[in-house]
Amino acid sequence: MYNRLTSLLGIKYPIIQAGMVWNSGWKLASAVSNAGGLGLIGAGSMTPDLLNEHIIKCGKATKKPFGVNLPLMYSKVEQQIQVIIQNKVPIVFTSAGNPAIWTQILKNEGIIVAHVISSVKFALKAQDCGIDLLVAEGFEAGGHNGREETTTMVLVPLIKKISSVPIIAAGGIGSGEAMLAAFSLGADGVQVGSRFAACHESSSHIKFKQKIIDLHDGHTVLTLKELAPVRMIKNEFYRDLEKVYSKGADTKQLKHLLGKGRAKRGMFEGDLDQGELEIGQVSAQFESIQPAEKIVNHLICDFNHALIRIQPIE
Amino acid sequence: MYNRLTSLLGIKYPIIQAGMVWNSGWKLASAVSNAGGLGLIGAGSMTPDLLNEHIIKCGKATKKPFGVNLPLMYSKVEQQIQVIIQNKVPIVFTSAGNPAIWTQILKNEGIIVAHVISSVKFALKAQDCGIDLLVAEGFEAGGHNGREETTTMVLVPLIKKISSVPIIAAGGIGSGEAMLAAFSLGADGVQVGSRFAACHESSSHIKFKQKIIDLHDGHTVLTLKELAPVRMIKNEFYRDLEKVYSKGADTKQLKHLLGKGRAKRGMFEGDLDQGELEIGQVSAQFESIQPAEKIVNHLICDFNHALIRIQPIE
Repeated sequence: MYNRLTSLLGIKYPIIQAGMVWNSGWKLASAVSNAGGLGLIGAGSMTPDLLNEHIIKCGKATKKPFGVNLPLMYSKVEQQIQVIIQNKVPIVFTSAGNPAIWTQILKNEGIIVAHVISSVKFALKAQDCGIDLLVAEGFEAGGHNGREETTTMVLVPLIKKISSVPIIAAGGIGSGEAMLAAFSLGADGVQVGSRFAACHESSSHIKFKQKIIDLHDGHTVLTLKELAPVRMIKNEFYRDLEKVYSKGADTKQLKHLLGKGRAKRGMFEGDLDQGELEIGQVSAQFESIQPAEKIVNHLICDFNHALIRIQPIE
Repeated sequence: MYNRLTSLLGIKYPIIQAGMVWNSGWKLASAVSNAGGLGLIGAGSMTPDLLNEHIIKCGKATKKPFGVNLPLMYSKVEQQIQVIIQNKVPIVFTSAGNPAIWTQILKNEGIIVAHVISSVKFALKAQDCGIDLLVAEGFEAGGHNGREETTTMVLVPLIKKISSVPIIAAGGIGSGEAMLAAFSLGADGVQVGSRFAACHESSSHIKFKQKIIDLHDGHTVLTLKELAPVRMIKNEFYRDLEKVYSKGADTKQLKHLLGKGRAKRGMFEGDLDQGELEIGQVSAQFESIQPAEKIVNHLICDFNHALIRIQPIE
């Protein structure tokens, strides 16, 4: 085993595939787990029944450990947890919500529980709940994010300092070089989202995947801070948001414009103009849609090459 | 020589001390250069006469190379450049402005010219101007910053890919671990600002230095994006700005509230409530005010320790 993280999770490589809404079904999760990382099914976009189906299919597609990412803010979280427990999923990553309520319930079932945080305050709270792992997610990450806007470079060492549990760095990591950077900062592993969103096995629409590949720096933005901050592509929908903001929008107006189902419409159905396209800044670095296994292998290979390249300073 | 950056600049360690307004006078610059890094005098807060005085004093205080950081947006830039040329300063870091006008004038005098950028677009422009070095500065950095909000973790690899000149990473770097992270991402060196702002030799007010040490994550913000984006501490002045923003401020109102001399008032005169206190996110990591030499030695020592700690992944 490479380190305390891979030992705890029973995986070969310290690479976690982020459980992303509309991207991370059983195909992606099982492909990453089979490649030696940890695949996560993204429960945020699934009904309890659909989650059940994905867990069963994932278990048939891999003999390796896999997990579920569970946003805690949705109304069906209790039913989703029942599905997770019934299926004996060994690992759960919780996010977007209060870990105080569910952590011990999951742990009592022998489940390893990680929680995603974006600040020291929430890391301390999560530790108090008895969390096994912390995911320290920086400002550059795609999707839902913190209000403090602390970047991965700054956040990981802060969390390292106050934490006794293994730390997984997230945000801005889509290469072996960035993975090595995360380890330099004190991380025990990395969570990779955007790069897997644009991989063959992702369940998102091909138009969304191609859009991710075409992005440059400055093409994403952290917005909707008045509701729940989210990083997404600056598309036509975002321009509409900007117009509302320029007139001094209140949360009611923002909620009305956002409406329902925008994330599905964008990422799953491929409406690049009016959909909500959640992705990280790091997407500016990607050049092609690849299979998950190739991405995992590249990450490890480039990590090792970058490590050899750096010499001590005398 | 350690690498192409230290060779080009004639320095021992690939550490640049950022030339920060109201912080980086001859005392700080000479202390960092004497410690083996590259000290930069921050011309942005100096009249040409005062800059002349600081350059002469710095030259007396160190036999090692030092440079000047020159924001290009100020009205006295031509006179400042005359002072730099007359004093045969060997290295100039330009920032906040268009390098097209001044780069060749400086280079014709045999001066090595670096330019600070925050996006691929501006990096390409700077390269076209014949720049010798690029400073890739991420969103987390203190003071003036880019509009794209790209973090150091994401920006450095993007610049590395399109650049033929040595790259200095800036933003979020205040430790040897973060320095190693920057090298992992492809940087040839690092520019450290905040940590030197809070060091003994910084010319800023002791109250400002103590405030830096006391900061936690989430205590700084990138604001005034309608004028020139700047990262500063969320103090009383920032709360006043927020009030103006909440009413849908235009640039005229913002300029009026900002007024003149706020940065001096805050950082140099120690008005922590109503001054503009420019500092990076990384300040949340600092524990004490230290001498510059100790900081340089810590950076190198911790860089080497972090490098030894990381094992290849098999």
